[in-house]
Amino acid sequence: MNEAHPPRPSDTGSDAIRRVFEPKSIAFVGASQSQAKIGGRRWKSLIEGGFAGRLYAINPGATSVLGHKAYKSIASLPEAPDLAIVSIAAELVPGVVEECAALGVGAVMIITGGFGEASAEGQRIERDMTSRLIASGARLVGPNCAALFSGPARVNVGGWPMKSGPIALVSQSGNIAIDFARYAEQTGCGFSRSITIGNAADLGVADLIAYFLEDPHTQVALCYVEGFRPGEGRRLVDIVRGQRRHKPVVLLKPGRSDAGRRAALSHTGALAGEDAVVDAALREAGIIRVDTVEAAWHVARALALQPSCASSQIAVLTDGGGHATLASDALGSAGLTLANFSPETQQALAALLPERCPRNNPIDFAGEAEGNPDVIPASLAIALADDAVGAAVIVGHFGGYHLIGGASLGPLEDAAADRIAQVASKAAKPVLLHSVHGDRSLAALARLEAGGVPVFRRIEMPATVLQGMHAAFRASTLPVKPRPAATQAPAAEHSRRFLSEAETRTLLAAEGLPIPQWRVVTSAASCNAAVQHFAVPCALKMAPPQAIHKSELGGVLLNVVGDEAERGFAKLAARMRQFDLDPAVLVTPMAKGEVECVIGAFRDPQFGPVVMVGLGGTRVELLGDVAFRLAPLEREDVPALVAETGLGRLFAGYRNAPALNLEAFGDLLCAVGQLMARREDIVELDINPVLVSASAAAVVDARVAVASASELRRP
Amino acid sequence: MNEAHPPRPSDTGSDAIRRVFEPKSIAFVGASQSQAKIGGRRWKSLIEGGFAGRLYAINPGATSVLGHKAYKSIASLPEAPDLAIVSIAAELVPGVVEECAALGVGAVMIITGGFGEASAEGQRIERDMTSRLIASGARLVGPNCAALFSGPARVNVGGWPMKSGPIALVSQSGNIAIDFARYAEQTGCGFSRSITIGNAADLGVADLIAYFLEDPHTQVALCYVEGFRPGEGRRLVDIVRGQRRHKPVVLLKPGRSDAGRRAALSHTGALAGEDAVVDAALREAGIIRVDTVEAAWHVARALALQPSCASSQIAVLTDGGGHATLASDALGSAGLTLANFSPETQQALAALLPERCPRNNPIDFAGEAEGNPDVIPASLAIALADDAVGAAVIVGHFGGYHLIGGASLGPLEDAAADRIAQVASKAAKPVLLHSVHGDRSLAALARLEAGGVPVFRRIEMPATVLQGMHAAFRASTLPVKPRPAATQAPAAEHSRRFLSEAETRTLLAAEGLPIPQWRVVTSAASCNAAVQHFAVPCALKMAPPQAIHKSELGGVLLNVVGDEAERGFAKLAARMRQFDLDPAVLVTPMAKGEVECVIGAFRDPQFGPVVMVGLGGTRVELLGDVAFRLAPLEREDVPALVAETGLGRLFAGYRNAPALNLEAFGDLLCAVGQLMARREDIVELDINPVLVSASAAAVVDARVAVASASELRRP
Repeated sequence: MNEAHPPRPSDTGSDAIRRVFEPKSIAFVGASQSQAKIGGRRWKSLIEGGFAGRLYAINPGATSVLGHKAYKSIASLPEAPDLAIVSIAAELVPGVVEECAALGVGAVMIITGGFGEASAEGQRIERDMTSRLIASGARLVGPNCAALFSGPARVNVGGWPMKSGPIALVSQSGNIAIDFARYAEQTGCGFSRSITIGNAADLGVADLIAYFLEDPHTQVALCYVEGFRPGEGRRLVDIVRGQRRHKPVVLLKPGRSDAGRRAALSHTGALAGEDAVVDAALREAGIIRVDTVEAAWHVARALALQPSCASSQIAVLTDGGGHATLASDALGSAGLTLANFSPETQQALAALLPERCPRNNPIDFAGEAEGNPDVIPASLAIALADDAVGAAVIVGHFGGYHLIGGASLGPLEDAAADRIAQVASKAAKPVLLHSVHGDRSLAALARLEAGGVPVFRRIEMPATVLQGMHAAFRASTLPVKPRPAATQAPAAEHSRRFLSEAETRTLLAAEGLPIPQWRVVTSAASCNAAVQHFAVPCALKMAPPQAIHKSELGGVLLNVVGDEAERGFAKLAARMRQFDLDPAVLVTPMAKGEVECVIGAFRDPQFGPVVMVGLGGTRVELLGDVAFRLAPLEREDVPALVAETGLGRLFAGYRNAPALNLEAFGDLLCAVGQLMARREDIVELDINPVLVSASAAAVVDARVAVASASELRRP
Repeated sequence: MNEAHPPRPSDTGSDAIRRVFEPKSIAFVGASQSQAKIGGRRWKSLIEGGFAGRLYAINPGATSVLGHKAYKSIASLPEAPDLAIVSIAAELVPGVVEECAALGVGAVMIITGGFGEASAEGQRIERDMTSRLIASGARLVGPNCAALFSGPARVNVGGWPMKSGPIALVSQSGNIAIDFARYAEQTGCGFSRSITIGNAADLGVADLIAYFLEDPHTQVALCYVEGFRPGEGRRLVDIVRGQRRHKPVVLLKPGRSDAGRRAALSHTGALAGEDAVVDAALREAGIIRVDTVEAAWHVARALALQPSCASSQIAVLTDGGGHATLASDALGSAGLTLANFSPETQQALAALLPERCPRNNPIDFAGEAEGNPDVIPASLAIALADDAVGAAVIVGHFGGYHLIGGASLGPLEDAAADRIAQVASKAAKPVLLHSVHGDRSLAALARLEAGGVPVFRRIEMPATVLQGMHAAFRASTLPVKPRPAATQAPAAEHSRRFLSEAETRTLLAAEGLPIPQWRVVTSAASCNAAVQHFAVPCALKMAPPQAIHKSELGGVLLNVVGDEAERGFAKLAARMRQFDLDPAVLVTPMAKGEVECVIGAFRDPQFGPVVMVGLGGTRVELLGDVAFRLAPLEREDVPALVAETGLGRLFAGYRNAPALNLEAFGDLLCAVGQLMARREDIVELDINPVLVSASAAAVVDARVAVASASELRRP
């Protein structure tokens, strides 16, 4: 991914992507007999995949390749193929691209690397090739990508076996695609589509997810992405928010740690951005973010194959207290809770289970199931019938009871497995099973999997999967609505210029924000007059735009009354003269309020304008108790946003304090969001503090950085 | 685990535990022919384990059991066995215990359940049995426990196969012991000892870990514990801190998600919940706390079998950028860093690898290894030779290159695996490998494991393992020193009584804490006189002990000068009369300082006296930015403790503020720790705020709760 990109068509390239996944004809440039070459292995994979359309091998040195007639060049083909796949030496690629553009090929996938990821010269060549293809009406996948699979079209350009299934994968990394393919193999589940996009010079993650959301062969979109192109994150959020029906999107994005962000930067040049912004943006879209390949796969698979998890209250059934505790802890850490069983549920369990077994949640079989496995499906049926219960997790060593208790238990376990699957299916709620034998080929566990009950070796995984499933359920209940448009251009860092406080106040007041009155004075006498005019205690602040960190310069005097005004002016003026500044002082009435909040806003390279709220004052950064949301935000989003920080409890009335005016604070916040969305020249905005009381929210200090107009860019 | 326990001997029971793990003779009460019974399966397991000492089957209804002569009762045995194992109906157990005590059996393990965990009556019986055994000089394991294994003595009372090895396990849960046994089986590593302690009526986690630390057959102690008995956590910390040689202790303790939500002993303790105290205490002892069974096992195994990880800087070798990014992110999240290679290392890598491969960390083979696997050990040797590097992680799809690139690669992978193991062994630094084929039986991966290089399927695990290994290394560098003694008795919740502020000040001043002057006045005139006396602005506070939340009652007036004193007294007096309190006002000079800190202290039921520090003021709980340490703490511990919170940056001089007086703050903190350690009647202590400046740390407000003497208990 490069800093500067060629102009890109505004559509998501769905026609081109259709020709990638549903081609009528494919040309393979670099098709080879030799299995030592990538071009040989990929061509073989393509043939063996069983593609039913027209296949063209391009190899100027051969007459046929693995039984297919070889053509000298793209130019010599009898038709313009839907898709050209290119795996030849890097220096030959631009020529082939030119031929593709000239012939009118639909889409080009360049496996060859050595372009944008390798050198400045490579970046230039990559840009030129992309521009040429787009100008011809074609689109590009790659370069530097690894594999392509389309189950319905029987296209497999990977080199490893792939099974068809409900999951569509787009990955920035070839090796992560292999990792997912291995999980698919382990779990017996497959892909509708799988594509690696390498440098993503043209088609990117957002384009492909947009396609998957409309693709009838895809149930769940799965994505590995290290970073978005400028504005691409915002585009993805808008696409997923606005989808007509709710198809889950599961996304694995590293960058939680500094080390991960640096590695992503060196791998794909991806600016991983502030991770909290990524989190906030993805959550807003209802995209399920996960942290590991394993979790991504299991969540995607469960979303494709399981009923939905409509409640966060989970039933746990366990062979013993240790696993009950670990399972409860894992569920709690995943933001889920143990369901409170109804009296009816508890009575039914009491009638079923021996007296020594706790009948509340977790249901502890205390050894009973190990001799009589059928109590598991019987208890499960009771638990799932409880309206409060959203899903059930069975934990312990089911499937291996017979290994300790004797072979005669084997058939009883097998029968119980079948019944568990039946009960789960009938209840239409997710049921997941953990067993310490989950890694083994044991009959009862195989029957569970065959019956649609996923089996896990690690007790944390059911909780992780249910966390993702419940988040997906909640996302499916979000109103389907497009977001208001926003200017997305991130302004370059070096172009910023800070406005003076007076300019800032003028700007914000013009935008309708409630800014207290102020005057800028340049003499002690006029300072005195201003304080007299306001007739309340005032704040005196250095006014020159250079005085950005006023407080730290000793450039602010508070609670100035009466004849203190002249002395105050003199004091600030002396300090300003030390810095060679012409003395100017901003006079404004002291604001009243109980709690200092901060409202910030900035332009994220990936997600465009973002607002931030938190506990304000001089220690914002130290406390780090802030929350983010894409701008503009809507009035109804304010309470949830505020509740993500300690402000939630302060606004509600912390300890014996009165509740604060959330309405007024929300007005301010939404106005800032609107401003950021409309005025793309504002790079950064910081209102700190906003002083909030039970009656009002007052701007006490504000700072705005703008970009110089010449440096604005549109995506 | 019950609330009230019988008196317990003060030693750790090492003689008794030796008779459990190294018995010369074992009696099994409840030995049965029937494999449908627990007594039958355990007895068979014991015989098949190959125990070489004298075995006695106790079964009044048989003449022999599985080829061993059966005795009618313990009383009828020809000798007092070292160990009696009891697996019979619960109602028969007390009689057997009586016989054991009478005969002088060394240790008794009661597998039977239905005692303390089941009912109040069961708790009483359990206490009586425990007392009887202890009085006879014997010790008790259980009741309600599951299994016992001792590799050197060939004792296996589990019912599942166990392999000997370097790891000793004590588990509160039988099923978690099975879970660990499965990981042992999967990884081909075994146990020196394994014991489940069930209700732990007598011997507990601390006793067993103390034994493991002295046990020559044990390399690493592994523990699953859900909670400690009163004071037991502290005892464990003291045992591990004071061990003569550094043997790692790996501990799995759930309860992360309960942090802060459980009923707390005190307001201060509720801030971060007990889990933060557990974390702090275990870290202080150098105990490696882990969060999953999987992590516990792999960390323990690596600590037993791998060289130590002396640096937190890790080298990553990868097949591609995606896994490089995920591995870097996992390492970063685990508190480790990517090593900065020296110029020599980079040059050597440049000479070895093709130009397209990045030579810095992560080393990205970019497809090269997939055709020429030997570059992996060659690069590994270079990376490990770099002094900065503490360990290496290899990630990608090694072992399965031949599945994509052709069978001819198989022998090359096998040879590379052998060389990787050789290089790792020679460098004496840990090397761990992730492969997407890690779950498969592939020749190269088996060779790695055989050569001592652990193989993982999930890329997060090497980071988790190295995190534990590096923590263990750091713990091994801690000075071996016993901690100063502390009274450990937690006072019962209902027994607390808050001192008035004047009483609190008197107490703290008597203990040598720097408390500002104060006077308590009961009339407006004497209030005026007090303010005149101090001759600086004063604070006026309600003085009656009932006014605990003074600020919230409007019971504090600040910056009172001159004739404001009389009015102030009148105002507070009126308010006190509303609450039927006799008016009394504490007058004290206003303290000066820049930063409000909090110093808290309380008695944790598991760990005894604990001190807490954090950013103070009224929002301590809201911010939750606090850190804990067992009391008393030492002067040298203060900087690290403070640095665990935002205070670290404030003390260093935040933004343009001056550095604060850490010396004075540390004096105060240590004095509080000493006080808590010495005065067991102090249940809770809260100094909030401590106002800290560059020159001093001043106590502004303090609160102490004491226990009534009659309710004090000693452990």
